[in-house]
Amino acid sequence: MQNQELKKPWEQLSELVRTDDPEQINAFLNSINPADTALAVSRLNATEQSRLLTLLEPEDAAEVIEDISDTQAADLIEDLPPEQAAAILEELDSDHVADLLGELDEDDANAIIEQMDPEEAEEARQFLTYAPDTAGGLMLSEYLDFRADQQVQDVLDDLQANREDYTYYDVQYLYVTDDYNRLQGVLRMRDLLFPSRATKLGSLMIRNPYKVGVDDSLEALRNFFEEHNLFGVPVVDAEEKLLGIVLPEAVEEAHQKQSTQQFLGLSGIIGGEEFRSMPLLSRAGRRLSWLSLNVVLNIAAASVIALYQDTLAAVIALAVFLPMVSDMSGCSGNQAVAVSMRELSLGLVRPAEIMRVLGKEVSLGIINGLALGILLGGVAYFWKGNPFLGLVVGGALAVNTIVAVCLGGLIPLLLKRIKLDPALVSSPLLTTVTDMCGFFFVLSFATLMLDRL
Amino acid sequence: MQNQELKKPWEQLSELVRTDDPEQINAFLNSINPADTALAVSRLNATEQSRLLTLLEPEDAAEVIEDISDTQAADLIEDLPPEQAAAILEELDSDHVADLLGELDEDDANAIIEQMDPEEAEEARQFLTYAPDTAGGLMLSEYLDFRADQQVQDVLDDLQANREDYTYYDVQYLYVTDDYNRLQGVLRMRDLLFPSRATKLGSLMIRNPYKVGVDDSLEALRNFFEEHNLFGVPVVDAEEKLLGIVLPEAVEEAHQKQSTQQFLGLSGIIGGEEFRSMPLLSRAGRRLSWLSLNVVLNIAAASVIALYQDTLAAVIALAVFLPMVSDMSGCSGNQAVAVSMRELSLGLVRPAEIMRVLGKEVSLGIINGLALGILLGGVAYFWKGNPFLGLVVGGALAVNTIVAVCLGGLIPLLLKRIKLDPALVSSPLLTTVTDMCGFFFVLSFATLMLDRL
Repeated sequence: MQNQELKKPWEQLSELVRTDDPEQINAFLNSINPADTALAVSRLNATEQSRLLTLLEPEDAAEVIEDISDTQAADLIEDLPPEQAAAILEELDSDHVADLLGELDEDDANAIIEQMDPEEAEEARQFLTYAPDTAGGLMLSEYLDFRADQQVQDVLDDLQANREDYTYYDVQYLYVTDDYNRLQGVLRMRDLLFPSRATKLGSLMIRNPYKVGVDDSLEALRNFFEEHNLFGVPVVDAEEKLLGIVLPEAVEEAHQKQSTQQFLGLSGIIGGEEFRSMPLLSRAGRRLSWLSLNVVLNIAAASVIALYQDTLAAVIALAVFLPMVSDMSGCSGNQAVAVSMRELSLGLVRPAEIMRVLGKEVSLGIINGLALGILLGGVAYFWKGNPFLGLVVGGALAVNTIVAVCLGGLIPLLLKRIKLDPALVSSPLLTTVTDMCGFFFVLSFATLMLDRL
Repeated sequence: MQNQELKKPWEQLSELVRTDDPEQINAFLNSINPADTALAVSRLNATEQSRLLTLLEPEDAAEVIEDISDTQAADLIEDLPPEQAAAILEELDSDHVADLLGELDEDDANAIIEQMDPEEAEEARQFLTYAPDTAGGLMLSEYLDFRADQQVQDVLDDLQANREDYTYYDVQYLYVTDDYNRLQGVLRMRDLLFPSRATKLGSLMIRNPYKVGVDDSLEALRNFFEEHNLFGVPVVDAEEKLLGIVLPEAVEEAHQKQSTQQFLGLSGIIGGEEFRSMPLLSRAGRRLSWLSLNVVLNIAAASVIALYQDTLAAVIALAVFLPMVSDMSGCSGNQAVAVSMRELSLGLVRPAEIMRVLGKEVSLGIINGLALGILLGGVAYFWKGNPFLGLVVGGALAVNTIVAVCLGGLIPLLLKRIKLDPALVSSPLLTTVTDMCGFFFVLSFATLMLDRL
């Protein structure tokens, strides 16, 4: 046992999988936390992974699937025989099933759906039609609904009878629908505590409850839960028919996922799909596809230097300052990007308020441009003893800082207006422009003063 | 009225504040959503802002305070007379009061606390002693507790009697404590639905409920709520005494705030405090303080170019490729940073697994380094017709890509091990190193082959 504990979780799991003993595997997985489960499963090789899922009962396999990321889960599910995949999916909640099926090829997804229980298959097909980051894509079909003429006692009987099933539901609210499944009202659990058990739900329920449309965006849902501190909201279609419920956790999780994708995108990991457990060539290829685009941007920026080669050859000291001017103004611009992104996300500025942001940034750009220009110009002057070199370098930095700060402040607003995601595009766009402009200002100012340098 | 509606919310609010009519102001604020309230309040000048809070009843002023960010709220509160600030704070929940007081100078905070109702003052003092991102700093003191020998009927009577107050509570759970306020058990609201009203809580409650310690970290709380899908968790001290409850929303909000700070920090907005409504010189100064540090990093990187000025003067075409090599390897390195950060946050790699990451990245770095080196070397060769220039540029990019990818993969792990935040420091650190190395490889390879270029 001493020895057992020194082993890493994935080594233990890998050994257990080789023993073919589902009970021991299950006991082991229950003894470690979800994070360790995710780590251990991700470190198994493909054969061990599918053997693990095959050995476990569908409901235990479903728990493993819940602990790991959707991308990895979809990879695992794909490799299983469809009947087995279907049995596991039937144990997951409707939202999760749709997420996983959405990550698969259409053919693979259909093969699995065909093996599912007809009712669940129908539901899965329905859920797959909703766009991922909408109320439809985030909702659960597990909710409780009753009719207005049912009594409190009926609800209590139902809760008692379906106790087992409902432990997995987030039973905070009861929904009241009519014969056409149209949403009529909502009741909180505690509304059932006081009235007599013969009271009809229709007289207790809150009429015209808050609800969201099936096509409402993730942003709209976030705003909704920010404004209303509720444990869930019903989702209806155009005819007011109740389709499901969205929980605030699901909205938060989707938002987190989106932020992570954006962060990875910003860093050049497109699609957000790389894990180091993937095959080497696929990882290299994914990264290269983005880098090749970057080469083009780089060539564009560097071609400015190529245009001014003669000036550069005459005053070689300029080569030292070229990257400094570009980089420093890039940093100033990124500060302005960050302030705009924050003010946009807090709602403190509107995408149309170009002039307001420009006014605020121009004045700041002049101050910081002068300060930084004097600093770097001074460094250039003292290094080479030539005041004109200082003037060229300092002047270029000052002007480029103003450009960078104004552009940095505006780019997020402009991108937002044309419905592009500012987090994803602002920074690379800004950096390319400030590089080009920085090179241009230094070299063109130097060309003008060439006989004094 | 037509005219009124065309005005922006802050213009309307500013006009209303000048009319000195609290009822109209309140009606207006209730008619717009929290985001517009935040926007409108932030656009008022300091005099209008404090007049707004002075005109409103404390409970309405408290609603305004809840809609705006903590930093802005603290600024407003600071400018009010202490008695008035105290009256507004008494209307906020305990967690929020502590957050606001925490943002003030100690003297200002004490002056306000002294004006508060003694019981609330005592609580505020107590809450201020907890570190912000711990269970103590995030908890609410608004919860319901009962004794084990009380009956279901007692709870119902209490809920009925305190209906008004409790609508602001998140009444999902009831806590059972003993005479020393030690946590004994927990009950869900629905546990009260079935048993007879004479049943004692002690026989219904779940014993040894989940709980967290008052010093537990934000990360521990996030893990807790990830593992347990609960609507709140009780917070206890070392003696198991119940101090408050932490809701998952509070944990999520604190985490969001931390991420935003990190994003702003990464972009050079230190402290995360800049709003464009702040005075110009203060904004300029804050941004400059970070940029000046950046100058030093830049001079370090550029000094490598200065060392090789003679080589550069001899082969001026190199100046075109210097920024390209640095920038492209910087991008490759940032991809590796992003993958490591993601694997760290998903728990798919541990900070100690240096050799695993190194192994995965070296091989990828060789492939991508060769691919990119051949590409850029080819560009250089075709441009100048000199195969040796291609070799120098391509070789430098290949080697620097390998360095960047390995460093990028490792830096987040190393920073995590020395308890620094990888999100904040990885990227600037990496970029400075890849700049220096890129300049060095291009210029030193060129120096070796100088007679062939």
